[in-house]
Amino acid sequence: MNSRTGTAGRKSELTRKWILDVARGLFNDHGTSAVSTNHIAAGAGISPGNLYYHFENKKDIIRALLAEYTTAYEDRWAPTADAGENLATLRENLAAWSELAWAYRFFEREVLALVRVDPALRDSYRETYARRVGQYVAFGEQLEAQGLLRAPAPPGTIHDLAVAIWLIGQGWLPFLDVTADPRDPRQVARGTDLVLVALTPYLTTKGRRALEDVAQRG
Amino acid sequence: MNSRTGTAGRKSELTRKWILDVARGLFNDHGTSAVSTNHIAAGAGISPGNLYYHFENKKDIIRALLAEYTTAYEDRWAPTADAGENLATLRENLAAWSELAWAYRFFEREVLALVRVDPALRDSYRETYARRVGQYVAFGEQLEAQGLLRAPAPPGTIHDLAVAIWLIGQGWLPFLDVTADPRDPRQVARGTDLVLVALTPYLTTKGRRALEDVAQRG
Repeated sequence: MNSRTGTAGRKSELTRKWILDVARGLFNDHGTSAVSTNHIAAGAGISPGNLYYHFENKKDIIRALLAEYTTAYEDRWAPTADAGENLATLRENLAAWSELAWAYRFFEREVLALVRVDPALRDSYRETYARRVGQYVAFGEQLEAQGLLRAPAPPGTIHDLAVAIWLIGQGWLPFLDVTADPRDPRQVARGTDLVLVALTPYLTTKGRRALEDVAQRG
Repeated sequence: MNSRTGTAGRKSELTRKWILDVARGLFNDHGTSAVSTNHIAAGAGISPGNLYYHFENKKDIIRALLAEYTTAYEDRWAPTADAGENLATLRENLAAWSELAWAYRFFEREVLALVRVDPALRDSYRETYARRVGQYVAFGEQLEAQGLLRAPAPPGTIHDLAVAIWLIGQGWLPFLDVTADPRDPRQVARGTDLVLVALTPYLTTKGRRALEDVAQRG
């Protein structure tokens, strides 16, 4: 982010955000390899020079988009002392996950290829993953302490459950992209059902009832 | 496959298989985009002309590798009347899955990008997926009929469970590639544990005991 302040600084920030929005749309529609910085500049209605003022190259844009994506899902997994509220958080976060993964679907589809050619991106992604799984585990442990969740039988752990759920969540959109119509919102929303198939058996009767209550209220 | 018979035909088939093995190794080590047909010919110690006698281009080689990969995992999911045998099959197939996904790891990593640029490959992959999930569902229904498995509570279905397990299984290796050491056999084998975390809660007490028996015998 540029450190300039005042009207010029705000305008510059808006341009930067606008470039990222345009790039995200083009990447989602055509894949990153088919889109050049010239395409992005043209799509944004600015000169290539103006684009290069904000971003060094395409990799720099992709890194900024990962940072946006990560930030948008941060600070959602703080467990509270209120059990019902935790299950409401869980449900909301599953829905938000599905929406965000859709908005940044180019990243979900291409992440493996992208991190292979950009070590800095790989580092950010690893860091996000480790932090996120840590958050899931802490959240799961709080649910366990509140009698809402039972940990998997040994050698299984809450960490295993967290990773399995991460894989289902991350895998759903790319998978849909290959096997069905990835623009059908009902199909996209099924990702949440698949996560629940893995999670629900670990909820206690109390946990399941509380989750149903939350679902009916929402 | 060439239709010629006799010694020349067998030799030709061996060369074809040898080219595929070399290509698979190079793709696994460097990714498909960094490997050309010339690299593959050089790696196999044959002339580019000889390679083109067997394969039209790189896409043709990738398609042949997917066909190999698919065939190697076919005919494994026939449920029998013997409940214990079915659980032995389940365990064996999980282990075989892990090994095969490793042998064809370039495909697991790159499948989304590969099918995007080759509609014929996409069609094969979709067909394989649909057939495989159909096999899992039929297998699950047989386990259910034998009192070994309980289907997810509605609206969840055995089909959802099959897709969730497919996502965990397909997602594990690519994930490992990004977040940890993908050549560590202990890490690779953890894929099976993650699948079991999703599956085990749906086994009945009888099903869990039978699976433990199988695990101790194996």
